Amino acid sequence: MAVGDVTMPLMHVVKGVKIGSTEAHVRYPNRRDLVIFEFAEGSHVAGVFTQNAFCAAPVRISKTHLLEKNARYLVINTGNANAGTGTLGLQNAQKICEALAGIAGVVTQEILPFSTGVIGEQLPVDRIIAGLKPAFDSLQADAWSDAAKGIMTTDTTPKGASEQFELDGVTYTMTGISKGAGMIRPNMATMLSFVATDAPIARDLVQKLLKDAANQSFNRITIDGDTSTNDSCIFAATGQAGGQEIQSADDARYVIVAEVLTRVMKRLAQLIVRDGEGATKFITVTVEGGQNTDECCEVAYSIAHSPLVKTAIFASDPNWGRILCAIGYAKIQDLDVEKVQVWLDEVQLCKDGGAAADYTEEAGARVMQQSEMTIRVDLGRGTAKDTVYTCDLSYDYVKINADYRS
Amino acid sequence: MAVGDVTMPLMHVVKGVKIGSTEAHVRYPNRRDLVIFEFAEGSHVAGVFTQNAFCAAPVRISKTHLLEKNARYLVINTGNANAGTGTLGLQNAQKICEALAGIAGVVTQEILPFSTGVIGEQLPVDRIIAGLKPAFDSLQADAWSDAAKGIMTTDTTPKGASEQFELDGVTYTMTGISKGAGMIRPNMATMLSFVATDAPIARDLVQKLLKDAANQSFNRITIDGDTSTNDSCIFAATGQAGGQEIQSADDARYVIVAEVLTRVMKRLAQLIVRDGEGATKFITVTVEGGQNTDECCEVAYSIAHSPLVKTAIFASDPNWGRILCAIGYAKIQDLDVEKVQVWLDEVQLCKDGGAAADYTEEAGARVMQQSEMTIRVDLGRGTAKDTVYTCDLSYDYVKINADYRS
Repeated sequence: MAVGDVTMPLMHVVKGVKIGSTEAHVRYPNRRDLVIFEFAEGSHVAGVFTQNAFCAAPVRISKTHLLEKNARYLVINTGNANAGTGTLGLQNAQKICEALAGIAGVVTQEILPFSTGVIGEQLPVDRIIAGLKPAFDSLQADAWSDAAKGIMTTDTTPKGASEQFELDGVTYTMTGISKGAGMIRPNMATMLSFVATDAPIARDLVQKLLKDAANQSFNRITIDGDTSTNDSCIFAATGQAGGQEIQSADDARYVIVAEVLTRVMKRLAQLIVRDGEGATKFITVTVEGGQNTDECCEVAYSIAHSPLVKTAIFASDPNWGRILCAIGYAKIQDLDVEKVQVWLDEVQLCKDGGAAADYTEEAGARVMQQSEMTIRVDLGRGTAKDTVYTCDLSYDYVKINADYRS
Repeated sequence: MAVGDVTMPLMHVVKGVKIGSTEAHVRYPNRRDLVIFEFAEGSHVAGVFTQNAFCAAPVRISKTHLLEKNARYLVINTGNANAGTGTLGLQNAQKICEALAGIAGVVTQEILPFSTGVIGEQLPVDRIIAGLKPAFDSLQADAWSDAAKGIMTTDTTPKGASEQFELDGVTYTMTGISKGAGMIRPNMATMLSFVATDAPIARDLVQKLLKDAANQSFNRITIDGDTSTNDSCIFAATGQAGGQEIQSADDARYVIVAEVLTRVMKRLAQLIVRDGEGATKFITVTVEGGQNTDECCEVAYSIAHSPLVKTAIFASDPNWGRILCAIGYAKIQDLDVEKVQVWLDEVQLCKDGGAAADYTEEAGARVMQQSEMTIRVDLGRGTAKDTVYTCDLSYDYVKINADYRS
């Protein structure tokens, strides 16, 4: 069960975006597993992708196609990641793009393919190609919720976020979906997210907006140097709601769009953590007082990745020694441990590197029993700050990942 | 249950080493939890310690004492790590050293303290000091097995290794013990090991022998940049079995001692993995064909730390996609994935970055069902090679670590 409120909001339609889907039987019968996005001509589309050396065939093709042409269609299958599949995997992804290009009447480079699911098996390419026509024929504006369901793997809940905002009297929409999976070390979850707005934004700004927002959202849970073979996030601006194109990051409207996009992507990223495999708790790890954000991130990830911290939280055990230990091995140069403070929500666990004098196990346990909590660390050596999001490590994590292929 | 054969061998007495122990009730009643080692005058003692910034009070004191004097006594308690305990923790460790120095008639700097157990609580220093006299009075040569039991925490079995070897017609002994704990990411296990020989070795060579052997044993499971607050390994050469002192690394006898020490320490390190919390399988990860040993280690640790790989092995699922994924995010510069080969024992899973043509799930599953296996990776870019040892991730790992303090 996901942690906290994960209900789908009202998914506002984005002008210039249509979505179709079908049951292509990629891996399991009776489930929506093939989704197509169509972006209106003139849309600007940007992507950020996994850094994994073994990036999957669809990732390699999407990156190439994005460089060559502006994307008009996304084609996404679940059930099979088409990763570790060699030359045949590339050919299969290419075939699917060609087939959809034929149906849609565009060139192959205008199609971006995405896959998620089991690694190391070849795609059932005939079944996917057979599903393209029914999915294409179902294209409609109001289908974001269907798309959210159609990209799930071990997710227990579809994930969506949607906002409307106003620029110079015009109302615009920002809507997106995401899917995730294993969260013990977020780097191995396969994360996909697709976000679109009907605001008019210049092409190069779309890439910048996406990169900056990803750095505050998905890159704080998963898309960073350590990623799965398939992680991808796409942002499209169709410009179909009218208004003057935003052409500069100094434009006041740019700042508003950036805020909305970051908020939507943070929500989509946090939903992945809330639905982490076996997760029972949602944990925000904030590290402040660093010399720079890099070292804040190092410490935050060190805590967020620690199986000993995560099992202690699962057990509602305020074992702050494990948190100190994780801070200690984050390899921060010349860390003065006697300046380190640690809080669990408002309860100070550690003061000046040791137990806080007024700390009691009861106070710590009270916070630990909550389903959401913040671990806050002050390194006492600067003004930089950063935050990552994670979940606990439960019996069910092992069960889900030990059983995944069976 | 530990994996494979973990029985204690015949623990040969080391001339010049005496061991005492007692029940000091540090945390639990009715268990041996306080151990003293005595080294004959003139022994040469070296240590390697955790790199964790929050290194525990006893580690800080042991490092200082080793710089000031030659060690004559070790005092080791289990049940409480005396870590994250601030100034009071340092004072407590110091008090214990002073008390033992008084009993033994040596100076305080000749005592090295060690602690393992719960982090963040103050030592029950009065109970430990009360135990020093009975432990001291029990000092005897033939007590290595008692010592191995007396330093256990969540270990399910005492750990020992012992060999006899000959140099220029003289028979010498090398005997050691170790203890470990959580192994999902070995960096967080608290590892202690104490090894001694009665061979005569010059002081500076003792440190070099220890450092080199640690790099092939404990540093391939735990004592590296990422370590717990308390990890320590001590090596003492008493010289009490006679013979000419070894004074150069070029001495043929040095090479023999180095081999024996490395073999004993590898066994002690592997015993910790075999007894990893919840471990059901013992996994050797060998990476060859690297440009240097650092990158071989990076890849090996990336695989050995991957919870997705470890849960797949627990489930006997030859999910080689997870292994490829872990290789891919090890951040090896310019890795040509199409040159990567992966074997599980003798079964080739991946050839040239994709599935090996003649690989079958049955062949992979057959190896996965064994309690011991080797994952071998060839990076295809050089001649360097390195090996790390790990275990799988089971339900019981979560259970043990969620329950540890209750």
